[in-house]
Amino acid sequence: MPGAPTPQPNLNEIRGLLKELAGPDGAAGAAAEAHQAQLTKPAGALGRLEELAIWLATWQGRHPPRLERPLTAVFAGNHGIAAQGVSAYPPAVTAQMVKNFLDGGAAVNQLCGYADSDLRVYEMALEEPTADFSEAPAMSDADCARAMSYGMLAVEDGIDVLMLGEMGIGNTTSAAALCHALFGDEAGDWVGRGTGIDETRLAHKVALVDASVARHRDAMTDSLEVLRHLGGLELAAIAGAILAARRARVPVLLDGYACTAAAAVLHAFNPSALAHCQVAHVSVEPGHGRLLQRLGKRPLLDLDMRLGEGSGAVVALLLLKAAAACHTGMATFAQAGVSGPA
Amino acid sequence: MPGAPTPQPNLNEIRGLLKELAGPDGAAGAAAEAHQAQLTKPAGALGRLEELAIWLATWQGRHPPRLERPLTAVFAGNHGIAAQGVSAYPPAVTAQMVKNFLDGGAAVNQLCGYADSDLRVYEMALEEPTADFSEAPAMSDADCARAMSYGMLAVEDGIDVLMLGEMGIGNTTSAAALCHALFGDEAGDWVGRGTGIDETRLAHKVALVDASVARHRDAMTDSLEVLRHLGGLELAAIAGAILAARRARVPVLLDGYACTAAAAVLHAFNPSALAHCQVAHVSVEPGHGRLLQRLGKRPLLDLDMRLGEGSGAVVALLLLKAAAACHTGMATFAQAGVSGPA
Repeated sequence: MPGAPTPQPNLNEIRGLLKELAGPDGAAGAAAEAHQAQLTKPAGALGRLEELAIWLATWQGRHPPRLERPLTAVFAGNHGIAAQGVSAYPPAVTAQMVKNFLDGGAAVNQLCGYADSDLRVYEMALEEPTADFSEAPAMSDADCARAMSYGMLAVEDGIDVLMLGEMGIGNTTSAAALCHALFGDEAGDWVGRGTGIDETRLAHKVALVDASVARHRDAMTDSLEVLRHLGGLELAAIAGAILAARRARVPVLLDGYACTAAAAVLHAFNPSALAHCQVAHVSVEPGHGRLLQRLGKRPLLDLDMRLGEGSGAVVALLLLKAAAACHTGMATFAQAGVSGPA
Repeated sequence: MPGAPTPQPNLNEIRGLLKELAGPDGAAGAAAEAHQAQLTKPAGALGRLEELAIWLATWQGRHPPRLERPLTAVFAGNHGIAAQGVSAYPPAVTAQMVKNFLDGGAAVNQLCGYADSDLRVYEMALEEPTADFSEAPAMSDADCARAMSYGMLAVEDGIDVLMLGEMGIGNTTSAAALCHALFGDEAGDWVGRGTGIDETRLAHKVALVDASVARHRDAMTDSLEVLRHLGGLELAAIAGAILAARRARVPVLLDGYACTAAAAVLHAFNPSALAHCQVAHVSVEPGHGRLLQRLGKRPLLDLDMRLGEGSGAVVALLLLKAAAACHTGMATFAQAGVSGPA
């Protein structure tokens, strides 16, 4: 309605979207599978590269799949919990690293350059961190919904695949709290050293996650409430971007622990919500492997990475491009005059 | 000596080379490590990408390392053992696939195209397979040494990294026999389905490997004799290429089971022989994981691949290039004005 005021976003709208997710395109997937079977290699010999090509076609809804416009979106936010001394680095590093992204000096810049991916960096009100969730809910309903909506806007028209990443001093504490609230187990099972903290800080981090989840337990009536109480702006934006990508038929590569924890919020709400996502790699952060088991996701890479900023996702884009190159470029048995099994 | 006849190559010459291997360039490695420590990321946060950059500098003997001229060399040979019905495909497929490589239709062509690697395909007398090693030694001393020398020539001047691959119907049987002879265990521990054989052929393959190793046991007085009795021309060429790469300071990416089994011959002779090699991926072929444990090598990728033809090695080149891009392109903490740990 022209002239009508933009309504304030709220989490109930997003709950509605999460209940009506687009399904796979079975016809495109079947076309990809039929094509794979004719290529000059023993059936299945390219392993996960074959699966990736089929997955890409299935969730793009298009055969052959296309990878001309990859986009890497990195969301940066600050966390009130960082004031509790849970990170090896001061909160000012979030903004400093955003500047580094914009200046082209970070790992993700070099990786996007090599993988030929566009890169967008989204600053989420770095001067206004979320509330310290050991004392209060991290976000209001409106702030959380606005951050998710902001993330949705990252899914630009015409992109072929979306790599997601984050930057936020303190956000592995948030990730651990989200996982502990969503999946149970002990707080210590989900907490790791993040950017590299010592034993004392690690014990403090575990105690904070444990107490914070206990404090908000009764108020966290669904997984979006978990996100609102324990998440961060950049994590809410990632969840929004995943949701929008599903609606736009854009397959997604998730990065490490914080990114996957944000995705887990959607999975807890609707177990099919991450079917269009691959997890790029398993992080050294110990909660990540545990989280992937809960999500039933096998990572594409295991390279001992723990950087965030979308770095692992962009490395996995290389595999996706390799898969697509084989799928679209190989000769068939008939074309090449190669004999099949005797 | 100009005018002197080229002496017939023999395995004793190669034994001599294997005893005098170039060591790592500690200065180049230390320069790479010192540079890594200044880049804008928590120490170690890029995991194996950091290790790869340091390894590359160490074995190229140059900091910064360089990746402008990657070369992928695929050796193809035919095996007398293939007459025993150990493969799902007829031996004619070796030559058909070589034609497919030359026509640009195979997986390795697409991967080299995407990874921007030169590709050379070496036909090893496809009309003259090795002897059936269940009945006689696969090769004479001169034939084995000539094949190794041929592989050495693949290490062209000025290349920065060498990806190795093979094609040869029957060569997972040869690989299994090499491993059983070199490392013991049961023949069945080393035998898999190769291109996809059924239970009956699998049992036959196990029995052949078992009997062949037993037949030649006493004659196989060192690992080069193991190669001569049970190997193949393309596997001998791969071993030669690895050896020549070491002398030329060219780091190597090994591919799957057959390729790594050829490499294992060198390792058994001199345990430091593969220090300049990374194993690109672990194959679905079950002997490969076992072999990597024996070699103390952790694969870079685990993508359920089992194609050979250098395909996994070229996928790993993508990781190596990503590692080099980060290593050479990232800003330092000082350049970017990013704070260190608090």
